[in-house]
Amino acid sequence: MKHISSGEINQMEQRARARLINSLSGFKSANLIGTKDYSGCSNLAIVSSVFHLGADPALIGMIIRPESVPRGTLSNIKQTSSYTINHVSTLIYRQAHQTSARYDADVSEFKEVGLTEEYLDGIFAPFVEQSQLKFSLLLRQVTPLAINGTVLVIGEVEHIIVDQHCIKDDGYLDIESLESVAISGLDSYHQTQRLDRLSYAKPDRELDSLPLEGR
Amino acid sequence: MKHISSGEINQMEQRARARLINSLSGFKSANLIGTKDYSGCSNLAIVSSVFHLGADPALIGMIIRPESVPRGTLSNIKQTSSYTINHVSTLIYRQAHQTSARYDADVSEFKEVGLTEEYLDGIFAPFVEQSQLKFSLLLRQVTPLAINGTVLVIGEVEHIIVDQHCIKDDGYLDIESLESVAISGLDSYHQTQRLDRLSYAKPDRELDSLPLEGR
Repeated sequence: MKHISSGEINQMEQRARARLINSLSGFKSANLIGTKDYSGCSNLAIVSSVFHLGADPALIGMIIRPESVPRGTLSNIKQTSSYTINHVSTLIYRQAHQTSARYDADVSEFKEVGLTEEYLDGIFAPFVEQSQLKFSLLLRQVTPLAINGTVLVIGEVEHIIVDQHCIKDDGYLDIESLESVAISGLDSYHQTQRLDRLSYAKPDRELDSLPLEGR
Repeated sequence: MKHISSGEINQMEQRARARLINSLSGFKSANLIGTKDYSGCSNLAIVSSVFHLGADPALIGMIIRPESVPRGTLSNIKQTSSYTINHVSTLIYRQAHQTSARYDADVSEFKEVGLTEEYLDGIFAPFVEQSQLKFSLLLRQVTPLAINGTVLVIGEVEHIIVDQHCIKDDGYLDIESLESVAISGLDSYHQTQRLDRLSYAKPDRELDSLPLEGR
């Protein structure tokens, strides 16, 4: 086993350090954030920092790095309070990655990378038509984190659009069947293979495997 | 495609709703949080909300749900400012899941689930010996999120212990080769298969596949 001290981390070349530290947290979600400003210019940005915050109310958090995410995303969310989160699948991960290029502010990443805007009555922000699991959010909170200048964005889930076949009887969504991908580090994309669903853990009780359908 | 409105979400049975909402964010990291209190009682808790916050300084965030994560974890972190994050692999995911059982406060989950405490000079919190990628953190910030009573814990990476073979020339860690797992929903564990590493995206330039070693 290799030991790496904080002193050695501090001395690493900047990009190597970014690759190393970005690998530490484990597998990350791969999502496209869809937004639009009031002049009608849409924006699409891949984000690997979307996380579950709570089920009741249904809250999703994400970390935005103002200097690295396409500038439109955060300002559009603040302006309109509306955004969508769209799963990235094996079919669209290359287009999704391409949204991280620094396009000019008046350019829509949808068009540049070849993904299609999809609109739903009453929801301002665009969905990604090609995504098989997507949902709109209403902005609840934008909290700058003084510790490193990133921003914590929290939204409440408004409307979910999902392939019917992945909804299991107990509420679980089989996102593996949608071929949703995971990210490691800055640039590696992975598909998944289920090991098991496990029963709710209790002291002094053996874990059971759950059927995919739940029970 | 199935549409689910916020009204329908609100009316769902509580556990089905938790499974659904927990599935929305995509694949999640699987990590074990190792802590110890000053009386010497160790604690181990699986957490699926660890996320990358920044590389310089090297910061990792996680969301703790005070009422659901074994009570010791957050109080130990606050008391000692020391904790470890240990990747969950295919070899230990069942033991890792079992740490979520509600053991009494004076019981060590290490012993109950059959994982081994490992100590490093100068670091108070225990690592998980069986984990192939683990690191210690120094607590930087504990921020209660008023919106739903969860707590955002931010720590700075102190010391990394990792299987030498997974370190690539450009700094990337091949966590797939360690068989680190991903979680979906509340209870589903997945191993991964790499699709590709992709080059840094630029406007008007085709993406390249990167060799696993980087370049």
